[in-house]
Amino acid sequence: MPDPYTPSPNVAALRESATIAVSARARALRAQGRPVIDLGAGEPDAPTPPFVCDAAAEAVANGATRYTAVEGLPALRAVIAAEAVERSGGRLALDAGNVTVSTGTKQSLFNACFSLLGPGDELLVPTPGWTSYYEIAGLARARAVAVRGEEARSLKVTPAALAAAATAQTRALVLNSPCNPTGAVYDAAELRAILDLARARGWWVIADEIYRHIAYGGGPAPSALEVATPEDRLVVVDGVAKAYAMTGWRIGWAIAPSGVARAMTALQSHTTSNAATVSQYAALAALTRREESGRAIAAMLEQLAARRAGAMAILRDAGVPFIEPAGAFYLFLRVPGDPAAEPGSAFAARLLEEREVAIVPGAAFGTPEWVRISFAAPTDQVLEGVRRTVGLLREWV
Amino acid sequence: MPDPYTPSPNVAALRESATIAVSARARALRAQGRPVIDLGAGEPDAPTPPFVCDAAAEAVANGATRYTAVEGLPALRAVIAAEAVERSGGRLALDAGNVTVSTGTKQSLFNACFSLLGPGDELLVPTPGWTSYYEIAGLARARAVAVRGEEARSLKVTPAALAAAATAQTRALVLNSPCNPTGAVYDAAELRAILDLARARGWWVIADEIYRHIAYGGGPAPSALEVATPEDRLVVVDGVAKAYAMTGWRIGWAIAPSGVARAMTALQSHTTSNAATVSQYAALAALTRREESGRAIAAMLEQLAARRAGAMAILRDAGVPFIEPAGAFYLFLRVPGDPAAEPGSAFAARLLEEREVAIVPGAAFGTPEWVRISFAAPTDQVLEGVRRTVGLLREWV
Repeated sequence: MPDPYTPSPNVAALRESATIAVSARARALRAQGRPVIDLGAGEPDAPTPPFVCDAAAEAVANGATRYTAVEGLPALRAVIAAEAVERSGGRLALDAGNVTVSTGTKQSLFNACFSLLGPGDELLVPTPGWTSYYEIAGLARARAVAVRGEEARSLKVTPAALAAAATAQTRALVLNSPCNPTGAVYDAAELRAILDLARARGWWVIADEIYRHIAYGGGPAPSALEVATPEDRLVVVDGVAKAYAMTGWRIGWAIAPSGVARAMTALQSHTTSNAATVSQYAALAALTRREESGRAIAAMLEQLAARRAGAMAILRDAGVPFIEPAGAFYLFLRVPGDPAAEPGSAFAARLLEEREVAIVPGAAFGTPEWVRISFAAPTDQVLEGVRRTVGLLREWV
Repeated sequence: MPDPYTPSPNVAALRESATIAVSARARALRAQGRPVIDLGAGEPDAPTPPFVCDAAAEAVANGATRYTAVEGLPALRAVIAAEAVERSGGRLALDAGNVTVSTGTKQSLFNACFSLLGPGDELLVPTPGWTSYYEIAGLARARAVAVRGEEARSLKVTPAALAAAATAQTRALVLNSPCNPTGAVYDAAELRAILDLARARGWWVIADEIYRHIAYGGGPAPSALEVATPEDRLVVVDGVAKAYAMTGWRIGWAIAPSGVARAMTALQSHTTSNAATVSQYAALAALTRREESGRAIAAMLEQLAARRAGAMAILRDAGVPFIEPAGAFYLFLRVPGDPAAEPGSAFAARLLEEREVAIVPGAAFGTPEWVRISFAAPTDQVLEGVRRTVGLLREWV
């Protein structure tokens, strides 16, 4: 076919996901036979726990192959709502009507932004921040306003910084804790302070808590639901991808005031319909069989904690500064050079081509002088990849 | 939570899928214990063929639980491309680079419209037409222009009618054959005549062929790919939902010029990422194990043909005029009354509440004086539902 395509203004400014582009390049090099160490991945390297896979197969055998309601299985929505009520200490009155299940947390973010934001609106994005926040704002015809975090605070943003970046057009902010790419975790007081500011200004808070279960301080990271009151304009997005090693199943959800939930369902009814039925049953097993899930999460965390410790030891021994991750599975470190020259991108490209290690340039997160290293990979590869990174850093200046 | 939600202009005009709303109402009545006959469904009533379910379970057991490329498994895209080349008689040079796999044909339509259309653009929609075409155009900030089909031609549109509805803003048209809701099938000459018009005007043709395998004339309905030339601006959307009884798996795709395919992939990389991995493997089995698929499709078609014949006999005996469906699994018939009063909607509501039969009002398809009856339901229910429909029609005037 010929290619007479002129991009629509809807997508003319869109950049393909930068994190995904790195994985694609690493896969291409591997396909050429090169032994690339992939530390670019945003997913656990373990397969989904067998009890979840078995539950999925059983559901299919029992005929779970047809449409469900667009907003998801009632049982799945109910368990998500019940867990949210529990997390709020009973302060929030939530039920299945507040839950829209989607094809991954990314879709819940898209649904929320497309439904809440519009032309001229501004979305405050704590930066560094996950690459799709910026692009999704654009798809919703809004503008992402990067709010830089403080390096002394693990690159977390303060209410003061958010307030300074706000304008009359500000309508919402993103709150991602644990943070991708830094692994920084906001404590309960920090979360509440940001909710206070948002409430005073009438902003929506879109809390992305997909990494909540992956935290190294004992127990999950604090949730916005733990400190929220019924007066906050809060949309929490989450999913099974990271904690349950279920990235490929594509199940996420949004917990929102019922009017917002209904708007998101209506949107989804014309974009994708229900998330895959088999995947919804898999998610239901993960969320309801808590003992088995708990063991699987604990085992994954133990492994991640060991890799984290090993990688941090190498960086410390080499005197390389980095953000110590309290959650998620990333190490975020600065590459010397003029930020305007995107040293992180040049570094990542050279690391991949010359030393066969894939990591993600910080430009993907609004911070072009940094790079992100994932330690969700086999331990020997994580350690070797970090060593090669340190080796290239030494030669970098 | 409170509900301070004001819809964004992005979704303010959006109506929740009307076809889905009918199913939801039927489910609610059933939950109340009422024995509703559901002839509203847009999906085969059979479960997915066992060999597909087994292939999915096997893939999961082998670790297919992580992300794939956003645009889908290379093997799946390759088989889709190869089949398209075959269908074109080798005239079209297509490969995996022309294929973007999505979470259902609906997403492929959304991706195509959002990537091809923009503010001020017009999309010609042969009417009656599937409800989401109109809404998806709006989500893409374009305007759907309904082009009424001719009753004497099974409500199909002609190039003349399309040309008459066109303006300088026309940028694309939808071509849905077999058609939902009428079951009308465009023959090869009709397809080519519409492609000729589109080529002459520089329009994109978005051919929705999701019902292609469900046809009653012997063999699949003609595909736009069979008559297309490399000069046509053609995007074909299709999926495994209907032919393979796989609605719940949510796998669709678009076959498009590579620039359009890349734009759709970039869009999808920020809205949903890859379609569920397990579902992609299920689809791969359905598309590659042709002999088993062929048998399953033939068995389903035989059953649908019997129901179609039985339902048509009842309507003919009662002297009720209807569009004879050459494909898909719907009967489309007119309800007496002033179209402005939406007699189809009043009729469907009364049929559901008083006679416990769910069908879809034609307003969902831009034709408020019609109703759609699905015969993808158990035979006894189809026949009984059609009898009750005829009964109410007799009292209607």
